[in-house]
Amino acid sequence: MHRVKVRVVEDALDANNTIARANRADFDRAGVAVVNLMSAPGAGKTTLLERVLAGGSSIDGVRVGVLEGDVQGSLDADRLAHLHVPVVQLNTASGFGGECHLDANMVRSALPALPLDDLDLLIVENVGNLVCPAEFHVGEDARIMVASVAEGEDKPLKYPLMFRTCELVVVNKVDLLPYVDFDLERFLYHLDAVHPGVAHLEVSARTGEGVDALRAWLARVPDRVQTPA
Amino acid sequence: MHRVKVRVVEDALDANNTIARANRADFDRAGVAVVNLMSAPGAGKTTLLERVLAGGSSIDGVRVGVLEGDVQGSLDADRLAHLHVPVVQLNTASGFGGECHLDANMVRSALPALPLDDLDLLIVENVGNLVCPAEFHVGEDARIMVASVAEGEDKPLKYPLMFRTCELVVVNKVDLLPYVDFDLERFLYHLDAVHPGVAHLEVSARTGEGVDALRAWLARVPDRVQTPA
Repeated sequence: MHRVKVRVVEDALDANNTIARANRADFDRAGVAVVNLMSAPGAGKTTLLERVLAGGSSIDGVRVGVLEGDVQGSLDADRLAHLHVPVVQLNTASGFGGECHLDANMVRSALPALPLDDLDLLIVENVGNLVCPAEFHVGEDARIMVASVAEGEDKPLKYPLMFRTCELVVVNKVDLLPYVDFDLERFLYHLDAVHPGVAHLEVSARTGEGVDALRAWLARVPDRVQTPA
Repeated sequence: MHRVKVRVVEDALDANNTIARANRADFDRAGVAVVNLMSAPGAGKTTLLERVLAGGSSIDGVRVGVLEGDVQGSLDADRLAHLHVPVVQLNTASGFGGECHLDANMVRSALPALPLDDLDLLIVENVGNLVCPAEFHVGEDARIMVASVAEGEDKPLKYPLMFRTCELVVVNKVDLLPYVDFDLERFLYHLDAVHPGVAHLEVSARTGEGVDALRAWLARVPDRVQTPA
């Protein structure tokens, strides 16, 4: 019974990868780099985006749009629309059965609603979840994982795939460090164990600490994509 | 294509419910009440259990055991084993394909390892995730959902099924209230909107505030189960 189950899962992931490649080709044609932004619920993805885009939807001349993924509701998209950022909301509860992650097909269904020709960078804010989003590529060029210091320093060991498949780990809510039992050194030690050498930034979406560095990292994604290795 | 997908999901949930009923029958036969403990990653489930069971594996004469669900590793089970609590670790990554939730079959596979005859209450600590665990019954009598104030007051609106299907909401990390933008009244307003009248407790696993009330709630679960309505 387990063998059948694993095969079904593999088939689903194969099908997803095929659609992710089609998304990627469409993004490449439009000259849009794509970041898949992932975290646990409440780690601060949307507040970080509000901070990053507080000055407008362009970062150092890089025109940014956002695709918001949520199980239901449009709370996050509404928050960003305030800032006059091009934003499209995807709900995984409508037509997809209440999924705990975005997949390539859901993102594909949103492409017609996105002004791709007017964007250089699309940030896809995934559903808050540390497991399944890591398994489903959506056509992204880079993955950013946000970990809040309130969540505890053991998270890289407990959710290794998520930490292993990202290009940047944002350690958020560092303003809470004096008030939580979170040993930053130990977190980074665990992180290095599951993903040696991965970049990380220490940030507080609440105070703004470190947000400039995140903004600079994001602004460089289109260059990294277009420059052959 | 969506219709096929939804049908597969419904079949999986039907199969899960069948096994959950078998688990429930086994638990009833052994006289064990079961609580399904759920939350986002890092909301503090394990630290709460450490606090609740700090005085030993018996609460007011109710003998407690724990089933720990994690994607991989045994960090949480190791923490509780220290306290001489009967604890069994389930990893969803081994043989199940890296699932983001416990299902009834996984719990069933652990039954032989559990000393059911020596327990009155089994606490099943689910994988940290606010979506899928709510869809998969494991044979529990009651569900407790832990929400950390660091996660934000919008969570009941964004993950309504989780908040709607629990008997108790534990608002954890209230010691952080002075340092986070979390309006407790607004959280409770949102909670009431998705699950009118559900019980809640304000707790800090770090300081111990409110833990006695949680201990008392847990100690009453076997009575509630055995008393006909």
